[in-house]
Amino acid sequence: MIGFAVIGCGRIGRMHARNVRAHPRADLVACYDIASQAAAETAAELGSAAARSIEEVLANPRIRAVFIASSTDTHTDLIERSVKAGKAVMCEKPVDLDLARVDACWQRIADLKPLVMIGFNRRFDPSFRAVRARVAAGEIGAVEQVVITSRDPAPPAAAYVAVSGGLFRDMTIHDFDMARYLAGDIVEMRAMGANLIAPEIRAAGDFDAAMLIMRAASGALVHINNSRRCAYGYDQRIEVFGATGMLQAHNRHDTTVEAWGAGATHARDRAQDFFIARYAEAYRAELDHFIDCVETGAAPIAGFAEGREALRLADAAIESAESGRAVRLA
Amino acid sequence: MIGFAVIGCGRIGRMHARNVRAHPRADLVACYDIASQAAAETAAELGSAAARSIEEVLANPRIRAVFIASSTDTHTDLIERSVKAGKAVMCEKPVDLDLARVDACWQRIADLKPLVMIGFNRRFDPSFRAVRARVAAGEIGAVEQVVITSRDPAPPAAAYVAVSGGLFRDMTIHDFDMARYLAGDIVEMRAMGANLIAPEIRAAGDFDAAMLIMRAASGALVHINNSRRCAYGYDQRIEVFGATGMLQAHNRHDTTVEAWGAGATHARDRAQDFFIARYAEAYRAELDHFIDCVETGAAPIAGFAEGREALRLADAAIESAESGRAVRLA
Amino acid sequence: MIGFAVIGCGRIGRMHARNVRAHPRADLVACYDIASQAAAETAAELGSAAARSIEEVLANPRIRAVFIASSTDTHTDLIERSVKAGKAVMCEKPVDLDLARVDACWQRIADLKPLVMIGFNRRFDPSFRAVRARVAAGEIGAVEQVVITSRDPAPPAAAYVAVSGGLFRDMTIHDFDMARYLAGDIVEMRAMGANLIAPEIRAAGDFDAAMLIMRAASGALVHINNSRRCAYGYDQRIEVFGATGMLQAHNRHDTTVEAWGAGATHARDRAQDFFIARYAEAYRAELDHFIDCVETGAAPIAGFAEGREALRLADAAIESAESGRAVRLA
Amino acid sequence: MIGFAVIGCGRIGRMHARNVRAHPRADLVACYDIASQAAAETAAELGSAAARSIEEVLANPRIRAVFIASSTDTHTDLIERSVKAGKAVMCEKPVDLDLARVDACWQRIADLKPLVMIGFNRRFDPSFRAVRARVAAGEIGAVEQVVITSRDPAPPAAAYVAVSGGLFRDMTIHDFDMARYLAGDIVEMRAMGANLIAPEIRAAGDFDAAMLIMRAASGALVHINNSRRCAYGYDQRIEVFGATGMLQAHNRHDTTVEAWGAGATHARDRAQDFFIARYAEAYRAELDHFIDCVETGAAPIAGFAEGREALRLADAAIESAESGRAVRLA
Repeated sequence: MIGFAVIGCGRIGRMHARNVRAHPRADLVACYDIASQAAAETAAELGSAAARSIEEVLANPRIRAVFIASSTDTHTDLIERSVKAGKAVMCEKPVDLDLARVDACWQRIADLKPLVMIGFNRRFDPSFRAVRARVAAGEIGAVEQVVITSRDPAPPAAAYVAVSGGLFRDMTIHDFDMARYLAGDIVEMRAMGANLIAPEIRAAGDFDAAMLIMRAASGALVHINNSRRCAYGYDQRIEVFGATGMLQAHNRHDTTVEAWGAGATHARDRAQDFFIARYAEAYRAELDHFIDCVETGAAPIAGFAEGREALRLADAAIESAESGRAVRLA
Repeated sequence: MIGFAVIGCGRIGRMHARNVRAHPRADLVACYDIASQAAAETAAELGSAAARSIEEVLANPRIRAVFIASSTDTHTDLIERSVKAGKAVMCEKPVDLDLARVDACWQRIADLKPLVMIGFNRRFDPSFRAVRARVAAGEIGAVEQVVITSRDPAPPAAAYVAVSGGLFRDMTIHDFDMARYLAGDIVEMRAMGANLIAPEIRAAGDFDAAMLIMRAASGALVHINNSRRCAYGYDQRIEVFGATGMLQAHNRHDTTVEAWGAGATHARDRAQDFFIARYAEAYRAELDHFIDCVETGAAPIAGFAEGREALRLADAAIESAESGRAVRLA
Repeated sequence: MIGFAVIGCGRIGRMHARNVRAHPRADLVACYDIASQAAAETAAELGSAAARSIEEVLANPRIRAVFIASSTDTHTDLIERSVKAGKAVMCEKPVDLDLARVDACWQRIADLKPLVMIGFNRRFDPSFRAVRARVAAGEIGAVEQVVITSRDPAPPAAAYVAVSGGLFRDMTIHDFDMARYLAGDIVEMRAMGANLIAPEIRAAGDFDAAMLIMRAASGALVHINNSRRCAYGYDQRIEVFGATGMLQAHNRHDTTVEAWGAGATHARDRAQDFFIARYAEAYRAELDHFIDCVETGAAPIAGFAEGREALRLADAAIESAESGRAVRLA
Repeated sequence: MIGFAVIGCGRIGRMHARNVRAHPRADLVACYDIASQAAAETAAELGSAAARSIEEVLANPRIRAVFIASSTDTHTDLIERSVKAGKAVMCEKPVDLDLARVDACWQRIADLKPLVMIGFNRRFDPSFRAVRARVAAGEIGAVEQVVITSRDPAPPAAAYVAVSGGLFRDMTIHDFDMARYLAGDIVEMRAMGANLIAPEIRAAGDFDAAMLIMRAASGALVHINNSRRCAYGYDQRIEVFGATGMLQAHNRHDTTVEAWGAGATHARDRAQDFFIARYAEAYRAELDHFIDCVETGAAPIAGFAEGREALRLADAAIESAESGRAVRLA
C-alpha cells in the first residue's frame, strides 16, 4: 500500500482523493488544504485525516506520495519541497505559468532523480490511449496529420480567467500535450486567437477561441481548435491520419441511446459534460499508472519534462498569435 | 435498343417509364393506360407515343418488352397475353392476390419458356445486394438469423386497402421475397397481426402491423416486422447474422449531415420517405437487369417463381395469424 | 450502513461482493459458499468474514440483507429462510426453474410482506433505463413494437447447459423481463427454437438459437432473437418503436475509436464481451436500488413477481416451440 | 431548351457533356476539343455534333451557353470570347492560375454584365448545401469555427503537378471556396505546406500536404487540412461550429452496409473514391443552377468573383507558407 497525501481539496482535489481512497493499493493518509474546512470535509468523507500543515504532511513517513491539486502558483514550491522530503509527486497541470520558474524548479530537484508526474489525464483516456497504441503498432503507417478538437462546455468565471495564464496556458496546454503524445516533438507553431464568446474574457486580455497549426519534428502536421463554449457538451475528439489509414476517437455519451422521430433520426445524448465525467476513467488510470511508477521506479509517461514542453508550446502559441509569425521550436 | 411499352401510367408506372426513357439501351415505344389521359401525359412528357389499346401494343413488332405497372387484377391476363405475343415481360409485384390464378397463368405460358420478371425492386438495392453478395462470398459464415424491418411512412388510403389483398400480400410480400433472397426457401411460418394504427384498416378486416418468424430450409431463422406508419420515414433495414459475423444494411438519408445541439447530438435527417425516393437506384438497376436478360436470354434473379413463392408465404402468414398455428411449407 | 451477506462466491457472487464492498452505504459483513475455500478467498480479498454456515449468516443481527448468488436450485429455500429470518433478499435470477416451486415459495413468505428483489440487472443498464424513462415520458407515443436482440458471445459448457433449465429459462428469461419492462404484460407467445451452433446443446435436448414473437396486453408486438454464439461479442440491443418515434439502445464498446483504412471505414471495437463487463454499471445501479429499497421500504422495480412472470413466459415459450401453437397467457 | 456547347472533352468535360445531354431543359448542340478525336467520340456517344473550331461554336446561334472544360490556360481567353459572342459561360475552376490575368479578363468583359459561372461543384453537394442553408436559417447561431477536411485518394501524375499551379491553387482552391461559402470573406491567412507523400511532388517544388488557418471578416476561424493521398478514399468532410450547435457533413459511401466480425464492428465501405463519383449529384445540381440562371438572368452563386477570390486566397496561402507570416487580405 502506498501512503498518499492529497494537497488541495477543491473540486478536482477531492475527486483525486476519492480515487486514491478507492484504489486497492493506495492508502489516503492525509488531506491538506489551505482552507482547513475543505481538508476536514474531505478527510471526514473519506475516513482520512486532515493535516494541519504542509510540514506535517512532508514529515509523515507513512506518506510516500504527494498528490498536488492546489492552485497553480503553489505547484513548483510544493514539488520542490515534496521531492526534497523524499516523496513521489503527482502534480496537476500546469507545472507553473512561467517557464523560467519551471526550469528553476527542475534545476533544484534534478539531481535527486525525482519521480514527478504531471496530470495530463488525457493520456490515460482509454480511447486516446488505444489510438496511440494502435499508431505505435503501425496500424495507420507514419503519422501525417493530427486534428485535435477541444471545446469546453462553458467559459470559466472571470476570476479564474484572470489567474489562468490565458487560453493557451490553461486550456490548450492539454491539447499541446496530446499533440506531443500523438505526433512527437513540435518544431513549428502558428496560432490564431479570437474573441467570439465572452466579453469579460476579452476585457481580461485573453482569447476565448483559437485555432493552431504545428509541425512536428517527424514532419507531421497538427491542428488544434479550441472554444471556451460548446452548446452540445465537452467536445473532445482526436483524429490521427497516417499513410495507410486513420484513427478517430470520438466523444463519449452517457448512454448509447439513439432517438428517431419526425424531425431527426439517430439523435444521441449530449456529449459528456465536463472533465470530471468525461475523464473519470482516465483519472483513475492516471493514478494507477502513478502508483505503478512509485512501486516499480519506472518513469511516468507524463513526467516533469512533459509539463515543461507543453508550457513551452503555450508560450510559442502566445508569441505566434501576437506577432502573426511562425515560431520555431527546434 | 430494346423497344418497350409501359402499361399502366400511374405513379409507379410513370416512374418506370422515365427509367426506360433514360436507359441508354432502351427505347420507350409506347405507353398505355386504361385512362387514356394518363397515357397521353406520360407519352408527352417522355416523347413517346400513347397506345390506344393493349392489342396495339402487343401487335407492334418494335415492342420487344412489356413493362406491366397496371392494377394487380390485370397482371396475370397481361402477362399471359404479352408472353403469347412473344414479348419479354417485366411485371410489378404481386403477380396476383390469388395463388390459384398465379398457377393457372403459369400453366398457360410455361411451355413458351417465357422471360417474365417480377418487380421485387429491393433485390436491386445496392446495399441489400451487397449484403447478399458478401454473404455468398462467405464473409459471415452460414446464415443463422435474418431480421427484416419494414415500416411504411403512412397508411395507404382505405380504398387501396380494400383491394390490396391485405398487409401480408401487399406489404410483407416484399419482405417475404427479401427473406428468400437472404435465407433461401422458407419451410415454417408463424405470424402475428395487429391493429395499432388506423381504425379504417381494422374496419376493412386487415392488419396495420405485424411480426413474423420463419424457419428456412437451411435452418436459419427469419424475423420480419411491419408497420403501416412510421414517424421518421420509410424504415427499411436488414440484418443478417451468421456464424462468423453480421451484416446490416441501414436506412438511407438525403444528406450525410449530423446536427449537434444542446438537446441532441449526431442527429440526422429523416429516413428517405418512400419507395420512389428510397429505391430510386434499385428501380434503375432492376430495369438494367431486365434489359440484360432480354438481351442475353439469362434468367432474371426475380422471375415468375419468386412472385409465386412470395405469395405462398403471404398465404401462409394469413393462415398462421388466424389460426395461431405454425404453418409448414416444405 | 446496511449489513450484507453474500451467499455464493462464484464468479458472479464475487462480483456482487465487490460491489457491496465498494458501496458507500453497505457493509459486507459476511460471505458464504458451500465451498468454504471460495468464501474464504472472497472474504480475504474484501476484508470481510467467511461464514461457516447459512445458519450463522441468518442468525447474525448485523446482517440486514442477504444477496443470494448461489446455484439456482438453492434459491427458493434460501429466499424462504432469509425472509423468515427477517432479512431483505436480493436474489440472482432465475428464482427457480419450476413455476410450482416458485409459487410455493411465495405462498410461504407472502404474509411476511418481504422485500425480495430479483437480479434482472438489465433493468438498471443506463441506456435501457433511459429508453424506458423516455418512453414513459411520452417521447415516442404509444409503444407498438419492441425488438430485443440478445446473443451471447459463446455457448456455455455442456455441464452448465444440463442444469440450466434450457435456453428459454436460462438466457431468454432476461429478455422476457426486458419485454415486460418495455411493453408491459405479455398475453400471447409464439416461439421457435433452433440448433445451429453447438452439437452438444442439441444432444442435451436444448436449443442454441431462438426467435420469438409476443403480444402485450397493450397490443404492442415484441420480438426477441437469441443466439448462444456471437462472433463480434455480447450483442445486447433493444429497439422500441412507437406511434411518434423510435428509441434504440446499442451495444457498448470499450473505446470510441473508429478505424479507417483501405478495406473498411468507421470500424469500431468488438462489442463488450460478456455480462460482467457489459453490465458493470447496471450491477452497481441494481445494488444501489436494492439498498434504497432496504432503507426506505419501497418496493423494488424487479420484485419476486417479476421473477415469476419471466419464468411463466419461459414456460410458455417452451410450450409454443414444441407445439407450434400460440400460447395465451392472459 | 438551352443550347449548349461543351469545350474540352477530357474526363471531366465528357462527364459534363453527359449531364447536359441528360438535362431535360438542355440540348447538347456541339462538342469541341483541340483533339478532334475526343470531340468526335463524345459527340458520337451523346448524339451531338463535333465542332471543328471554337469559331464555329461561337458563331452558332443555337448555342446559348458554353461549358468550358478545357485546360486551365485556355480559360480566360475562352471566357472572353464566349462572353463577347453573347454566350452564357460555365467554366471549370480555376479561372486561371494568375490573378493578374484573371483581373484583366474581367476588365475586358465586365461592361457586358456577363453570366459567368465557375465550377465550384462542392457548393452544390446536397449535404454541404444543407449545412449552409441550415446555418443561414440560424440553426447553430453565429458561425465561429469551420473545419474542412479534404484529402485526395492518390497523388496526381507528375506531369499534371507541373502545370497545376501547385497544391493551393489546384486542390485547396475548392476548400478556399468552401471556406467562403460557409464563413464568408477571409481576412487573414496562415498556411503550412509539407512533403510527406510523393518525392516527385517535392521535386517539382510543390507540397503534397497542408494545414491552414484563416480568419473570416465575421471573426470566425477556419481550418483546412489537405493530403494528396488518402488510404480510405476521397475524404471530404466539413464541420461548422456555431454559438448554439454544430453541423457536420460526412463522407459518402456506396452502400449503407455495416459489417460486424471478430476483429471489428460497424465497419463500412471505403469513402466514395473520387470527385466523379463523390460529387455526381453536385455536378448535376450545378448544371441545373446554371441553366436556371441562363433562363432567369439570376446571378449564379459561384460567379466570376468567387473564382477570383479563391485564387487570391491560394496566393495568400503560398505567401504565408513561404514567409511563415500571417497574410492580411482585408
